[in-house]
Amino acid sequence: MSLLVTLTALLSGPDQPGLVARVSGKIFEQGGNILHADQHRDMEEGVFFQRIEWEPRNPQTLQEESDSFVVFAKALGMTARVSSSVHRTRVALFVSKEDHCFHDLVLRWKAGEYIADLVAIISNHEIIAQAAHSYGLPFYYFPFESGIQGKQKAEALQLKLLKSLNVELVVLARYMQVLSADFLNFLGKPVINIHHSFLPAFAGGKPYHQAHERGVKLIGATAHYATEQLDEGPIIQQDVVRVTHRHGVPDLVRKGRDLEKTVLAQAIRWHLESRVLVYGHKTVVFD
Amino acid sequence: MSLLVTLTALLSGPDQPGLVARVSGKIFEQGGNILHADQHRDMEEGVFFQRIEWEPRNPQTLQEESDSFVVFAKALGMTARVSSSVHRTRVALFVSKEDHCFHDLVLRWKAGEYIADLVAIISNHEIIAQAAHSYGLPFYYFPFESGIQGKQKAEALQLKLLKSLNVELVVLARYMQVLSADFLNFLGKPVINIHHSFLPAFAGGKPYHQAHERGVKLIGATAHYATEQLDEGPIIQQDVVRVTHRHGVPDLVRKGRDLEKTVLAQAIRWHLESRVLVYGHKTVVFD
Amino acid sequence: MSLLVTLTALLSGPDQPGLVARVSGKIFEQGGNILHADQHRDMEEGVFFQRIEWEPRNPQTLQEESDSFVVFAKALGMTARVSSSVHRTRVALFVSKEDHCFHDLVLRWKAGEYIADLVAIISNHEIIAQAAHSYGLPFYYFPFESGIQGKQKAEALQLKLLKSLNVELVVLARYMQVLSADFLNFLGKPVINIHHSFLPAFAGGKPYHQAHERGVKLIGATAHYATEQLDEGPIIQQDVVRVTHRHGVPDLVRKGRDLEKTVLAQAIRWHLESRVLVYGHKTVVFD
Amino acid sequence: MSLLVTLTALLSGPDQPGLVARVSGKIFEQGGNILHADQHRDMEEGVFFQRIEWEPRNPQTLQEESDSFVVFAKALGMTARVSSSVHRTRVALFVSKEDHCFHDLVLRWKAGEYIADLVAIISNHEIIAQAAHSYGLPFYYFPFESGIQGKQKAEALQLKLLKSLNVELVVLARYMQVLSADFLNFLGKPVINIHHSFLPAFAGGKPYHQAHERGVKLIGATAHYATEQLDEGPIIQQDVVRVTHRHGVPDLVRKGRDLEKTVLAQAIRWHLESRVLVYGHKTVVFD
Repeated sequence: MSLLVTLTALLSGPDQPGLVARVSGKIFEQGGNILHADQHRDMEEGVFFQRIEWEPRNPQTLQEESDSFVVFAKALGMTARVSSSVHRTRVALFVSKEDHCFHDLVLRWKAGEYIADLVAIISNHEIIAQAAHSYGLPFYYFPFESGIQGKQKAEALQLKLLKSLNVELVVLARYMQVLSADFLNFLGKPVINIHHSFLPAFAGGKPYHQAHERGVKLIGATAHYATEQLDEGPIIQQDVVRVTHRHGVPDLVRKGRDLEKTVLAQAIRWHLESRVLVYGHKTVVFD
Repeated sequence: MSLLVTLTALLSGPDQPGLVARVSGKIFEQGGNILHADQHRDMEEGVFFQRIEWEPRNPQTLQEESDSFVVFAKALGMTARVSSSVHRTRVALFVSKEDHCFHDLVLRWKAGEYIADLVAIISNHEIIAQAAHSYGLPFYYFPFESGIQGKQKAEALQLKLLKSLNVELVVLARYMQVLSADFLNFLGKPVINIHHSFLPAFAGGKPYHQAHERGVKLIGATAHYATEQLDEGPIIQQDVVRVTHRHGVPDLVRKGRDLEKTVLAQAIRWHLESRVLVYGHKTVVFD
Repeated sequence: MSLLVTLTALLSGPDQPGLVARVSGKIFEQGGNILHADQHRDMEEGVFFQRIEWEPRNPQTLQEESDSFVVFAKALGMTARVSSSVHRTRVALFVSKEDHCFHDLVLRWKAGEYIADLVAIISNHEIIAQAAHSYGLPFYYFPFESGIQGKQKAEALQLKLLKSLNVELVVLARYMQVLSADFLNFLGKPVINIHHSFLPAFAGGKPYHQAHERGVKLIGATAHYATEQLDEGPIIQQDVVRVTHRHGVPDLVRKGRDLEKTVLAQAIRWHLESRVLVYGHKTVVFD
Repeated sequence: MSLLVTLTALLSGPDQPGLVARVSGKIFEQGGNILHADQHRDMEEGVFFQRIEWEPRNPQTLQEESDSFVVFAKALGMTARVSSSVHRTRVALFVSKEDHCFHDLVLRWKAGEYIADLVAIISNHEIIAQAAHSYGLPFYYFPFESGIQGKQKAEALQLKLLKSLNVELVVLARYMQVLSADFLNFLGKPVINIHHSFLPAFAGGKPYHQAHERGVKLIGATAHYATEQLDEGPIIQQDVVRVTHRHGVPDLVRKGRDLEKTVLAQAIRWHLESRVLVYGHKTVVFD
């Protein structure tokens, strides 16, 4: 909503005395005005995390200042990622047949909630094509031929497209294909996924049927970064909704859909605002 | 809170046309006034469930009316359990070292929240003894000698005590021993347990450490009827609380404790008010 | 989701013994199979409420059976409203400039969540016209000329349209005009409204600014039936979301929008499924 | 839980460039190790807020370092309050007849959740006396004689006691007397209060009866700093719980009690951990 031009750095690395002072001192010396700064220490692991946002003195040299900050952080033994508030992240949405997250995200984007460009809607089904076009969005159809080779072929084409479009974030908005380890490695960009969650967890297919059979009182959804281990990547956001015996499987599915929409939308917002730092199997979310 | 003398029946059995009419007709014919009635049908399984509460014409013959209702239900092919609003359920609390659920339940009971008598506080540790006595509650200490035999011996003594006290409900208020299948069978009374829950679930020890390591954003608690399968019995109530990276393991443990208190207290209330029907692996809760 | 043809009655009236038995007996005698029945008694006021859903023996005579049930209820001193599961309620959406509830409701309707027909999108602004058309929905523009007379004129035209379309439910999906008492009286159909809610409540304009200034930790939304007293009609559903000092006014507005969507969508679902009974200033929601 | 000796400063004042760098630089120069630092800017008002926690080089000179920090902050135009992790805040609990918050807070304190000393239980009724004594806590009874003079007299005695005990925090744990403006001024220490909240808000007596009559779907509780305007002080924490038409007034009261316990307990924790900064009518809570 703000027209302020700011830079935001996400830093992490081994903890050491004086980090807060050094980082803020560096920005101050260069004439920057720190707007927000949030630190966290993982005491068990001895790791330091920081999100720091500042107004640079010269908005014309954002790239230079970003690069210089990364170099400075490296000298402190830290890893840093710097992004500017005017950068529009290039996002690709992957969808299959279920379109609730797709519509929700596109409408939020059209309403100006995300500083991002939706550069591609990608699907293994053609069903979304018309809706994508009615929103004026480019739609790409990659059918999967059967077998491992069919998957490899489709993924190779997807990767080529994503690279050519300079995609910076992939969102799996109920995309019902598991991305291969190779795909994730070659892509080299963050991928956010959404899936249902239950207490207790259920393995195998038809999870809502299992949840109904088990009489769970809460159903949940989890947004996470995709890794090779399906549904096991670092968690960004989770939420639950209450259900009773009066809710049949279709009700559970419907309530699950509503939950998936809000949880995924929130996770994407946090990612785009440079609020999520990943380390090990988990995230630090500076909300 | 009410001084009304009422009877409440929990019925279940194969669905058939006319059940609601027959049950309510029966009560009406006997001069009863139905106060609440709640039905549920499990469409997949073809099972009918009902909770029905009524004021009997003659409060002096509660037992006869209860017995007669059970016979009536049997003739319809249904199982019924009838309880009266003036019956004080005899409850035994099992506790180990952690006393948060113990204090919470005792204070609720002292505040008049439960129509029940606390007839025994049972522990495998002596640590709770003094607090139990200061509340004026009978405390029983059953230490566990090592090995299977030690457990069998302690359980045999516990069973003897529970039988002699006519205990009707056992509450495991953070009791850190797994009850054997034999114990549950011989007891033949409902046992309510409370345990932590996570999305995703964690197997093995130190679950809060695992949850912290995995960076979960929600921690939960589940109250359920105890069965031979530990933590797998029919779920009565569940709830969650939000956590962030700022919360260390001690914070997770503390938040988990608060959750366990409220979830267990609610499950016990529903049980005592005859609101919980068990079937298969799940419950119908008429809240 | 179900293809079952059922009838659902909502009954209310002075409490008297035998009501449950009489109502269920009546349905049973006519060969109906009761699927769900839920009763409530307001003890203070001595009023009986029931929602009862049944499969009629003959799905060809739904109207006759409905009419006969209403007559039967009247003879018991009760008011009844009966609707069938295959009836598609005719709904008109009123919108002003903010379109988040509009899109959310239309997409739910297109996804088959509502047994209803969207027969009119009505607005005092032209801004929604294009979106309505892209969904294939009829859009009606009623600008308000200034003054009381302008309002009267616009309302008269709206009423004429609503009558001609046989509208059965009006939904104010962020419609920023207060409906006059005359409009509500002449319409004679339920009107559901959504508005923000806070603890504490704020009078006057710019409520999100006031909430921010006051540092509230929760913001809420309330869906209610519209009455002459603005924002004072019987409450159908409420929910809240947590905010912190880190959230500026635009964040509060955005979070409020998300809340308004889900709260309004739920209230409409309950209304369409004949789950809401109004009496006095409040509702009984048989969820 | 931690045995670390740390200092925590809460700073606020007019925003100016370089504040983060100057504050962290000052601590670093003195050999301190910053563990946590959290900043916030109120953009509308141009105010800067910070909570910063550090390990001082010399744990023997906590007072000197605290004093020196306050002087340093003043030179920057900031107000600072510094507290140490080993300081046990001296707390007085005010109670009337309802004892649920009293028991909950005492049990948390006994369980080691609060770094604080409970130095006085103060009441205008004798009903709590025995429970206080059984916990080994000093109980003071201040009955209110009728009229303004009775109140002035009781408050004067209370103030004398609080001063003599060096009380640093007063908690109104369901204390049903309004503290006078004079009392608050002479005390000069923070007072935390808990009260119920509703959407919409209800003026006048018997709020739970009013909420029931209005058919609200949520009831809430708010913990805030007491000011002359009853129930109008800066909000620290709020929460809500869902209710339905099935809940009578006693259920609403019971659910309200549970909510009051957790909301008040959380507010006190945040206050004791120096996480709450007050400005104007609101708080910044660094949770």
